[in-house]
Formats: sequence, structure tokens, C-alpha cells
Amino acid sequence: MPRTGSTAGPTLAVVAREAGVSVPTASKVVNGRDDVAPETRRRVTEVLDRLGYVRRRGGPPKPHGMVDLVLASSPGGGAEGAAVVHEVERAAHAEGLEVVVSAGRHLGRDRLDRLAARGTAGVLFHGDAPSAAQRAWLARHRVPYVLVDPWAEPPRGTGWVGAADRGGGRAAVAHLLALGHERIAVLAADAPGRAGAGWLAGWREAVAGAGLPERAAYERRVGAAEPEPCGARLRTLELLALPEPPTAVCVESDAWVPGVYGALAERGLRVPDDMAVVGCGDLPEARWAVPGLTTVRRPVAEMAGAALALLARLASGGAADGLPVELETELVVRSSTAPPGGSSPRAGSAGAGGQR
Amino acid sequence: MPRTGSTAGPTLAVVAREAGVSVPTASKVVNGRDDVAPETRRRVTEVLDRLGYVRRRGGPPKPHGMVDLVLASSPGGGAEGAAVVHEVERAAHAEGLEVVVSAGRHLGRDRLDRLAARGTAGVLFHGDAPSAAQRAWLARHRVPYVLVDPWAEPPRGTGWVGAADRGGGRAAVAHLLALGHERIAVLAADAPGRAGAGWLAGWREAVAGAGLPERAAYERRVGAAEPEPCGARLRTLELLALPEPPTAVCVESDAWVPGVYGALAERGLRVPDDMAVVGCGDLPEARWAVPGLTTVRRPVAEMAGAALALLARLASGGAADGLPVELETELVVRSSTAPPGGSSPRAGSAGAGGQR
Repeated sequence: MPRTGSTAGPTLAVVAREAGVSVPTASKVVNGRDDVAPETRRRVTEVLDRLGYVRRRGGPPKPHGMVDLVLASSPGGGAEGAAVVHEVERAAHAEGLEVVVSAGRHLGRDRLDRLAARGTAGVLFHGDAPSAAQRAWLARHRVPYVLVDPWAEPPRGTGWVGAADRGGGRAAVAHLLALGHERIAVLAADAPGRAGAGWLAGWREAVAGAGLPERAAYERRVGAAEPEPCGARLRTLELLALPEPPTAVCVESDAWVPGVYGALAERGLRVPDDMAVVGCGDLPEARWAVPGLTTVRRPVAEMAGAALALLARLASGGAADGLPVELETELVVRSSTAPPGGSSPRAGSAGAGGQR
Repeated sequence: MPRTGSTAGPTLAVVAREAGVSVPTASKVVNGRDDVAPETRRRVTEVLDRLGYVRRRGGPPKPHGMVDLVLASSPGGGAEGAAVVHEVERAAHAEGLEVVVSAGRHLGRDRLDRLAARGTAGVLFHGDAPSAAQRAWLARHRVPYVLVDPWAEPPRGTGWVGAADRGGGRAAVAHLLALGHERIAVLAADAPGRAGAGWLAGWREAVAGAGLPERAAYERRVGAAEPEPCGARLRTLELLALPEPPTAVCVESDAWVPGVYGALAERGLRVPDDMAVVGCGDLPEARWAVPGLTTVRRPVAEMAGAALALLARLASGGAADGLPVELETELVVRSSTAPPGGSSPRAGSAGAGGQR
């Protein structure tokens, strides 16, 4: 593709000749000095604009000041992905950096060599960790990288920023306990990622901590191969078929909630009167839930911003101490939770987990 | 930020010295020639890897092969924005281009000058058109640009790719007419953008074409200042309060549908029996609608890919003939539409508008 010629652009000497002034005079105009006659300034400005002169601060343009963001491959992670792109761009702009995006599957040796050739400041990986080949390349070229909300548990020594999902699971149960629930189920992934494992551990801790009987039947797993809301629908139907069904359920992902709501509607049951539901994520889609979904917000944009800041620190030779970082979640109470047996819906938002 | 030093990297001479071979021999290894002894190849490869040598094809690295994507500022355009980023990256990768993302509000003179300095191949603007200052800069630097799904009607001569929303509005009405509806309302924006104006025009054409009486009361406008689903809720309540309320409504954006569904639920009315609802967009969020939303899919990813292809053509000096481009929409029939007065829900998807 052409247009690389435009990189050079006219020199100040060409501009000066064209405007019929000396190079120092042209330079004064470019640098906004006021010891130039108005007519001269006008003439030079006209030539600068006409020739498309690009002011070079501190020498010729360098292919620097760029950071790479590897997009999450998650299906359905759409809105979250957009939040990460926007926030990384915002935080990078504040650091004077531009952001190059790529799909992880496109980062073969050739594309990686281009990163090195333009001197990337570092790489952020959203969701997916780099492959072994990508990690080896990054180490060899001493390019720092940080994971944003990694799905799998990252290897030791890797910089990452995630959410405190264990605290989120605990907060969901604490909210239900405060409403008077004692039969609290959980839906979690069959092979949970980092976030899902935290959610499940938080649920177990809080249920055990409240002295409720341990019921293996209340812990239901959704298979990775099951399409997103469908596995949750089947597990909810199973919960409802138990001799003593739960009165509340903590759902690992907001994305599964349509399946939960659907199963309840199929059985003629109402949310929250017959079953209280707490989701996790506070995805934009959750605003569509009727009744409004009580959920544990995961601070996706904040994770992206913190990861960029961490990457910038590593890139400027800073230490990686204090790694990794878990940002607090927040319980957002809407209308899908109420005391067991029914009551009026509630609204509003309450902090949980401390920090926020 | 440092790391720009890594741009230079070790030269082939340094590699050759370190490996104890001649520069031509080191060059042979780098270029994959087979007239090198295996042990020599092993030694040189080890040094290449250890020193992080970056092969330069055709001279020193050039800051080329990049295209810029300006992200849509739309609130709630999250999932669509992510689809555009993913698709632009995919299409650009196929053209050997990397993608730099920015928020439009960050593209002041300084950032724009960086685009020129690194020889951008061109700029895609999603949703928002460039400002007057940005347009002037682009023209002055002869940087081509293309709009993806522009909200406002673009100025003549500007390259853009959008959706055939007029056809979408007609298809929505045709579907409702085929089900037997004769009282068909529309919700459109107060100050509609390009897509909304097309939707409204398509509704008007199809209603008039079917010989139905023109009813100004069935054309309801949602104010730009009203938060997203709320304006649609109020207009739906107004429609329901009419002496002869409509039996179906065409909604300019899926994002308004929760407001429409909510208003109907408030009045104890059911979708689709008491009111058939057709949305527009087929946003990922629409999968949350209960009952499933019949909607007109706008091909967002396809628009992004076509816009990148158009930009690549302009960047390599191609003509802008055949501009602009409107991609066909597609009616996706789910459960929110049925004959007036009620019937069983339907499912499946039917092409509309021809091309797909």
C-alpha cells in the first residue's frame, strides 16, 4: 500500500523557498513565535497548509509511542470487549501512546516482528493469555506484557489485572442471607476459568460460613460445550426438580441469566418471588432483564485502565512488585432478589467488598 | 516511554561477529538459504534469538502498513463497536495492514500529525463523521477516509458504507401486513440520523403503498435527550391510550425495545398477542428479549469489512466510483410478531431486501 511517501512531506527549506522567506523565518512561523510580520506569517502559513507540512518536534518521526492490545476472542464478550478497547485507548492517550489492536490468532511470527520493528512499548492481552510461541517471542525481544481479566489462572511472574471474583461470590450469598434465604444454589462452569473458580469458592465459603448444610445438589455445573443460555436453563430445571428446590441461585455469568429466567417461566415460576437470582458481570445486556437483574458488577473498564498503567510502568523499566492486582467487585441490587416467598421488589445499588 | 531503542536492535554485523561467522554467512541463515553447514546455522540461529535480531525485509523498518479506526462515541453502541473493531482488524490483516484505534475527541492536531508522521494508509470513522477541523487536516494531508455506518447524512463526495435502512423499514411493515395487521405504528428518533430517517421513510412508503389510512398519531418520535428505553416506553403508553390503538409497532432501534415491552407489561398486555413488535439492529442484547424479538438485522460487521476494502482501494490510488454503498438488511423472524389478536409464536429467519 502506498502513501508511505507522505511520511517525508516537504522540508522547512521547501516551504521557505515556496513562501519566499528564509528558513529561520519559516521556522519562527512554525514555532508560533510573534516576531514575524503578519503578512509574512500569512504567506508562510498558506504554504505550510498547501504543502501539508508536518511539524517535527525533536527530529524525524519515530515509529514509537505505541502499545498493542490483543482483543479477546470470547464469543459474546462483545460489549465487554468494546469497553476494554475504549478504556485502553483513553488510558494510553493520557500516556501519549497510540493503541494497535490485533486478534491473537493473527500474531504469528511475521506480525510479531512488525511489533518489534516499530518498537512497541508492550502488549496487553484481554482474556486469552499469549500462546507458548508468543510468550517465547515476547521474552526473547524483552517486550513487556500484561493480561487483562485473564480467563485462565496466569503463570507465576506474569503481570495481570483481574476482578476479586471470590469476594463477588461471597457478596452475592451475603445479600441473599440478609434477605432470609437458606437454600442458595450456584451455577458455575464445568471447567471454570479464574473468574468462575473465584465465584464458586466465594459461594462455598459464604454458605459454609453461614452454617448452612452443604448440599452438593445445589452446586450445578454448566458444560463449556453447551451454548450460552441453554446449559443454565437445563441446570435450573434440574434444581427445580429437586425434592427441596433452592429459593435462590447465584449465576456465574449474566450471559446465562436468560436461560435461568426462561426455565423459571417454563415452570410458571416468578422472579424474585419463587426464585431470587443474582448474576455476575453487570453486562450491558443485563439491562434487558425483566425483572431487573441483581448482579455483581465486574469492573471491566477499570481493569483495562489499571492494566495499561501497569504495562506503562513495566515498559519504562519499573518493577513488577505488587503484582497481580485484583479490583473489587460491587453488588448492584435491582429487582431479581427479594426475601424467600415473595415481597416487593427493591432498587438501587449497594457497595460490597469494601473498596468501591 | 523507552523501548524505542529496541527498534534498532542488533545489526547483522553484530550477529555475525558474535557467532564468529562472516556477514554473508549470517545473511544466508537469516534468509533461509541451505548452503550453510548445520552447525554454523545452529550457532547463528542461537545468536539471532539471543540478541533478538529482527529481520528487515527491504531495508530499515518503515512506519507503514497502518490504517486508523476512529471508534464510535455512541453510548450503548458497545457490542456493535466491538464487532466493528474485530471486523476491521480481520479485513486489515488480510490486506497486510495493522489497525490503530482512537477516540475521535483525541484526534487533535498533535495526534493527527502523528498519523501523518507514520504514514497512515487512511482513516475509518465509525458512526461519527470527522469534525470540520479533522476534515480539513485530512484533505490537506491527502489522507483518504471512509465512514462506517454514519449517523448523519454524509457530505457529497465522502466515501461511506451503511445499511439499506429504508428497505429495512419496508420489510418490517411487509412482514406485519402479511400477518394481517392494518394498524401499524412506528417509533423513530425526534431528529433521526441517516438510519432512522431511512427506517421512517420505509415505514411511510410501505404503509401508504398498502393503501392504509395515513395516521399521524401512529408516528411517534423519541427525543434525543430521553434516556434510551424510557422515551420508547412513554411513546408506547401514548399509542396504547389512543382511541384506536395500533396492533403492531416498528421500533427504530432494538435498544428501545425494553421500553416498549415494559410499557405493554405495565398495561397488562402481551407480546405478540396484544401488540406485535419489530425491532431494528439485531443487537446481541436482543437475544435477551422474552419473547424473542423479531428484528431487522443491520450488517454491522459486513459494513466494517466493506469500508476497509473501500479505504484500501482509495489508499492505493483507486477511484471512488460507485460510492456510497448500502448493504442489505435482513428480517429475522422470532416470537414478537404474530397475527393481530394472537396466535402461536413462530421462529426462523427469512431474507428480505433481496441480496442476502
